Amino acid sequence: MASRIRLSPAERREQLLDLGVRLFARRSLDELSVDVLAQEAGISRGLLYHYFGDKLGFREAVVRRAAADLVAQTAPPPSGDPQQRLLHSMAAYLAYVEANYEGYLSLVRGAAGDPVLREVYDEARAALTDRIFESDDAGMLPDTPVVRLLVKGWAAMAEELVLSWMADPAGVTREQLLDLLGNSLPALVASPAAATVG
Amino acid sequence: MASRIRLSPAERREQLLDLGVRLFARRSLDELSVDVLAQEAGISRGLLYHYFGDKLGFREAVVRRAAADLVAQTAPPPSGDPQQRLLHSMAAYLAYVEANYEGYLSLVRGAAGDPVLREVYDEARAALTDRIFESDDAGMLPDTPVVRLLVKGWAAMAEELVLSWMADPAGVTREQLLDLLGNSLPALVASPAAATVG
Repeated sequence: MASRIRLSPAERREQLLDLGVRLFARRSLDELSVDVLAQEAGISRGLLYHYFGDKLGFREAVVRRAAADLVAQTAPPPSGDPQQRLLHSMAAYLAYVEANYEGYLSLVRGAAGDPVLREVYDEARAALTDRIFESDDAGMLPDTPVVRLLVKGWAAMAEELVLSWMADPAGVTREQLLDLLGNSLPALVASPAAATVG
Repeated sequence: MASRIRLSPAERREQLLDLGVRLFARRSLDELSVDVLAQEAGISRGLLYHYFGDKLGFREAVVRRAAADLVAQTAPPPSGDPQQRLLHSMAAYLAYVEANYEGYLSLVRGAAGDPVLREVYDEARAALTDRIFESDDAGMLPDTPVVRLLVKGWAAMAEELVLSWMADPAGVTREQLLDLLGNSLPALVASPAAATVG
């Protein structure tokens, strides 16, 4: 019935993009075709091309929206104890990956070999890590070159922890994983190697 | 002149593989073709196919050898202080990536999308991390599910630190990077999150 409501082209495009992102949550990029979306939306492929240009345009739009969702959903609370805010973000990150595993995994893997996916992925990663410095009003992280590099490394670790655990928990509980995600960065930053004058 | 010495087929294959791995150090997998190797070795493509089956067989042989070299070159000293042994391994890891950057980067990236490369990459990663537990006769790492997962995450961090730094040192010295590589795992393992009874 919703499709009978008269939407502006921009609203219609947003609606289709929402559907694409929902489909992406449970499908890899390879499985997310214009055909699948057309079928799910009950519209023609031609109309989809009208909104998104071509197959790659549609894929890029979905991935950009998914990455923006990830960044938005993992935003830390605007104030409070920095470690609690980090824990909150990491809990949201884990929940995001759990809810969008197939699509997220295919973005991470696809980013390695595809320049467009890589750009989207790198931008999202940079937004996630830059935000930690921006929201660090309590000075948990000294903003030095060494700590900037360390946070990049830690972000790769957090991703590996979550993807490894999703693939095989291997005896680690969800609570233990959250502990690792929330406490690893403070432990790294407190280590003598990170304290080197950058 | 060396090619005039009569070699057994197995020796000849090893010699060609050595050359392939040397070429791989400064070339991505996409650039490492049978044609390039045939030209460098001064032999026909047909003879290369005789030794390696087909293009993919040659590529897989080179990548397997390169991964075995990485594992061998980063072996920790057989005894000594565990943290010193880890530092020694990580210094060798950094030196390996510096000497083989193009090929290593293409293996890491290619592993995301290619099942054969992924298998080689995962096996090498597992060898590198399992070894840390095997050589830990001083009990630096409690062998619990949580610490096993943490070491996986840390290996991803170490890779990201080195590849990010190679792409752009951004004010971080080589010595500072080595400090991060050698000291981050002990700092993580000493954190309360890792001490949770696994």
